[in-house]
Amino acid sequence: MRVIKVELGERSYPIYIGGGLLGLLGDKCAKIFEPQNCVVITDSNVGRLYGKQAIENLSAAGFSPFLITLPAGESTKSLRNVEYCYNHIAQKRIERRSFVVALGGGVIGDLAGFVAATYMRGIGFVQVPTTLLAQVDSSVGGKVGINLKYGKNLVGSFYQPNLVLCDIDTLNTLPERELRAGLSEVIKYAVIYDSAMFNRLEKDIEKLLNNEPKTVASVIARCCQIKAEVVAADEKESGLRAILNFGHTIGHALEAITNYKKLLHGEAVAIGQVAAAMIGAMVCNFNETDVQRIKQLIKRTGLPMCYKLDEASQKKLIEAMRLDKKASGGEAKFVLPTKIGTVKFGQKVPVEIIEKVINDIS
Amino acid sequence: MRVIKVELGERSYPIYIGGGLLGLLGDKCAKIFEPQNCVVITDSNVGRLYGKQAIENLSAAGFSPFLITLPAGESTKSLRNVEYCYNHIAQKRIERRSFVVALGGGVIGDLAGFVAATYMRGIGFVQVPTTLLAQVDSSVGGKVGINLKYGKNLVGSFYQPNLVLCDIDTLNTLPERELRAGLSEVIKYAVIYDSAMFNRLEKDIEKLLNNEPKTVASVIARCCQIKAEVVAADEKESGLRAILNFGHTIGHALEAITNYKKLLHGEAVAIGQVAAAMIGAMVCNFNETDVQRIKQLIKRTGLPMCYKLDEASQKKLIEAMRLDKKASGGEAKFVLPTKIGTVKFGQKVPVEIIEKVINDIS
Repeated sequence: MRVIKVELGERSYPIYIGGGLLGLLGDKCAKIFEPQNCVVITDSNVGRLYGKQAIENLSAAGFSPFLITLPAGESTKSLRNVEYCYNHIAQKRIERRSFVVALGGGVIGDLAGFVAATYMRGIGFVQVPTTLLAQVDSSVGGKVGINLKYGKNLVGSFYQPNLVLCDIDTLNTLPERELRAGLSEVIKYAVIYDSAMFNRLEKDIEKLLNNEPKTVASVIARCCQIKAEVVAADEKESGLRAILNFGHTIGHALEAITNYKKLLHGEAVAIGQVAAAMIGAMVCNFNETDVQRIKQLIKRTGLPMCYKLDEASQKKLIEAMRLDKKASGGEAKFVLPTKIGTVKFGQKVPVEIIEKVINDIS
Repeated sequence: MRVIKVELGERSYPIYIGGGLLGLLGDKCAKIFEPQNCVVITDSNVGRLYGKQAIENLSAAGFSPFLITLPAGESTKSLRNVEYCYNHIAQKRIERRSFVVALGGGVIGDLAGFVAATYMRGIGFVQVPTTLLAQVDSSVGGKVGINLKYGKNLVGSFYQPNLVLCDIDTLNTLPERELRAGLSEVIKYAVIYDSAMFNRLEKDIEKLLNNEPKTVASVIARCCQIKAEVVAADEKESGLRAILNFGHTIGHALEAITNYKKLLHGEAVAIGQVAAAMIGAMVCNFNETDVQRIKQLIKRTGLPMCYKLDEASQKKLIEAMRLDKKASGGEAKFVLPTKIGTVKFGQKVPVEIIEKVINDIS
């Protein structure tokens, strides 16, 4: 078992990474919380696989847990489901010192985290991410939230968990497409922060695709460490933290205009990374060879590098970028690579270049 | 114009108190925010009186404000209205560095503050409280939130405003019943923190009831200063801040069982203060003479000291107290006076004593 500490003063917390960790859920929670009612929020897929185990484990440690199971899928991240959770939790008399366990992928973590952040102005929160994407990204760093019809994650909070348990055994039941989508964020960490990890991914990508436990655990730990460092330096995204959005400006917009139905988040971000690399080559001397290395690694991971968009959809994509939370003055901001392992954030890009690149990836 | 500073490190903010301050709204905002779209949230009563002035004033200072007007009344503090605001704000392309102005009483401040706290994980927030209650209490200290059918303020955040403008001229249009209700919280500050202010209130209560500007401004400033000191010492209510809930354990429960329709918050808190004073006399040697002084002052203010409850309703009241956010292990906690100007918080009280006092105030 590996442990990464996210250093945020009195809001610091540990991330545990390894096999069989779901079996330690109750014990780990008992170190933080008094025995009492608590709630596990999950989705229909994950609940079927691990819901019972989580509930039994918490019960054995002295808690009285109850389970809320929501439909699987991005459309679950709605205010309607938040309300559903609030009412259930209030009915079960969850108190201020109690806690919510998010058992699932990014959708469940984001929604359950928002519920925990806002119920009684904030109760305890434990992340048990069961997808690679959630393990390396969304479960760490305290961004929680839900979608509006006007855009993804438009409503949310910064709210740190008390504990993150990454049980890599849960990846064995993860659909292959989701595993690949998670690797998209892994590649992102390498591009923005760690050229040595990029070299390692070029060497070990097949091991990761085959879920080789040692490699998986070590790569997840490194990603969490990078995220922890970045978040510790800039919790509320006033500066550096923006680098984590590499590939996300176009990625988020792609998800939005396809109504979150065609592409997984990691797939959209893969296309966004390719686009950002191409823009980097045009506006900040990012090496053409390195553009090709990124494309090659994304291709070997089995991720998409383009998405067919007609002219009207390309316009809609640019429009959607202007509504991005990071936009200001109606202008999208980009994270662009200068070399592998280093990026600049907050970059304005001439609209002609954006249009050209969007046309290239279409 | 008086200025009180709430000292919370990088989240510190000023409270301005005086006449004619609504005319400075645009200028004060322009010192903090760039010219851009912004939103003013108000209710139908306050909007009719001051909405146009606020919008024109912000426009003159270079902003492009738009107005959201919600129905007046406690039932406005719902998730449904929060959603309505989110969608309007998203549609108007309010960006991360923009801000929400809450123009109204506690209901509007709490709801608009929750919208500001959670839209894009937190945008700017300006409080322009127009009731005495909001000026001395709810606009200061960063508690924002909404009600669920299971209880008041069950959903919310701690979110500090960037600026509070208390224009005491707005009190001239405040219904007398609301003014009296606001004075209930003023009395509370005196009981929990400042015996000299209690003496002053005994002397000046008629001046306050007549809206005598100098007395009003000075008393509001003192209340804000007390709240600022308490909040600075304990922003997230892990300890001392609980003293602000004097009179609220029974007060909140009274509001809940009467569906927030019979009593104004301040009226319920007045009854709650009388009850807490009586409990104080029974469990922590609070002087009987001082119980009478509190009763007398509340009576002179024209506030209720009791509320007719049959036996079944008395049971419901005790049940409602157990769901209070400050309850733990299903047990309500009380703030009890030891002398005027000093209270103890987190006090458990034997159920027989609670039952007796509730019977006495019925």
